[in-house]
Amino acid sequence: MERVKQAIASGDLFAKYVGIELIEADKGYARVKMVIKDHHLNGAHIVHGGAIFTLADYAFALAANSEDRVAIGINASIVYAQAVNQGILFAEAKEISSSYKLGNYLVTITDDNNNVVATYQGTAYRKTEKW
Amino acid sequence: MERVKQAIASGDLFAKYVGIELIEADKGYARVKMVIKDHHLNGAHIVHGGAIFTLADYAFALAANSEDRVAIGINASIVYAQAVNQGILFAEAKEISSSYKLGNYLVTITDDNNNVVATYQGTAYRKTEKW
Amino acid sequence: MERVKQAIASGDLFAKYVGIELIEADKGYARVKMVIKDHHLNGAHIVHGGAIFTLADYAFALAANSEDRVAIGINASIVYAQAVNQGILFAEAKEISSSYKLGNYLVTITDDNNNVVATYQGTAYRKTEKW
Amino acid sequence: MERVKQAIASGDLFAKYVGIELIEADKGYARVKMVIKDHHLNGAHIVHGGAIFTLADYAFALAANSEDRVAIGINASIVYAQAVNQGILFAEAKEISSSYKLGNYLVTITDDNNNVVATYQGTAYRKTEKW
Repeated sequence: MERVKQAIASGDLFAKYVGIELIEADKGYARVKMVIKDHHLNGAHIVHGGAIFTLADYAFALAANSEDRVAIGINASIVYAQAVNQGILFAEAKEISSSYKLGNYLVTITDDNNNVVATYQGTAYRKTEKW
Repeated sequence: MERVKQAIASGDLFAKYVGIELIEADKGYARVKMVIKDHHLNGAHIVHGGAIFTLADYAFALAANSEDRVAIGINASIVYAQAVNQGILFAEAKEISSSYKLGNYLVTITDDNNNVVATYQGTAYRKTEKW
Repeated sequence: MERVKQAIASGDLFAKYVGIELIEADKGYARVKMVIKDHHLNGAHIVHGGAIFTLADYAFALAANSEDRVAIGINASIVYAQAVNQGILFAEAKEISSSYKLGNYLVTITDDNNNVVATYQGTAYRKTEKW
Repeated sequence: MERVKQAIASGDLFAKYVGIELIEADKGYARVKMVIKDHHLNGAHIVHGGAIFTLADYAFALAANSEDRVAIGINASIVYAQAVNQGILFAEAKEISSSYKLGNYLVTITDDNNNVVATYQGTAYRKTEKW
């Protein structure tokens, strides 16, 4: 894996805190996972939208930071397809388009039976600053 | 504060884990806060989009669950206005519209100088199930 | 093609006015097209975001109304990947998930060289009312 | 009104074609309207999501192009609060944040009784190119 993805994977304290692990990352692509724990649940006893979003967002960040320039998320939308409360969640990010300043990524979140749990669209802005 | 909001506030394990606190909640309204800690940061040393989203999402959930029926988020979009890495973040949710089955909420996330950090739009689906 | 999709295709006055044509529609799926004309352009001489959104939204509506119950869009997000000003645009909608009350669809908008122009995520609410 | 807004208002062929009129525009702000006509309706006899989006998008474009540099929409999300089929729709765009390259705008769409019909969030990318 590239140096940049290593830096993100090791430096992302929030992803670590939430319990998200990197499975695979490549140019414009990433796949991550999260084993559902009690601390991921909301008041309705299902996985919190914020935990699912964070999982997707981390895959997005890894896919968007393939190049050596720092890319930061500028907006995102998430659609929840079904509620989950146990098992493992996976998020897979793919690049839809990329230009010098912007990149668009689509992330699919699935459960361990490969059912779609949510879909996420995110846009990254590429800074001139390098990793 | 109403019984329902109490239930959500005390039962939301993810919001607690992330470090989000309820300030105020009313019918169709909520205000929450998060003191920025190291565990909220991403690999670029700014607050993780997932942490900001979770803060907004929790305000949204509190505002949407004003009635006695369970309301769950079905989708959301977030726009980041500026990066932050220290201080306190606040999220304030207001109801835009509400029907028997659906509710729409707008959440504004600000820093401790009242600068807008992000805006969030979310839709809740009201189940027949009660709290 | 089913009766419902026929009804939508013939009854959608705005889609007709904008110049969008149905290519194919099936259960949870639709493909439509729009030949770019001058009246689709904005002040920057590229196809107006509203025209691209309408194209996507029409594919979404056709895919969402596969069943005999009326489904209406409750929200949508669109990400523009590249500007276009001539040729033909296509939008293809696919169902991501579907329940008794809700359906989620992903729409990909491409140009006549199959480059992605935009992606769209939309949620439909299924009423009890029938077509 | 500034030269730039004039250029957009007169050059936006799609907004004209759809039947949208400028009411007021200022730095980071715009207000537009659309008298509902039959050609705005969809197959369910309510105003097409694409027409409402276009109304909002035009207000957004006017608000975003306050400066002399060309700003183009890079993504947007819309939430529909209620269906409408007659009367006049208004869209009011306000700037949430603005930097050298990016600007975020919130648009509220209302009917002639000032009920919220939809809310829209959009991000503009400011090019170096000038109007």
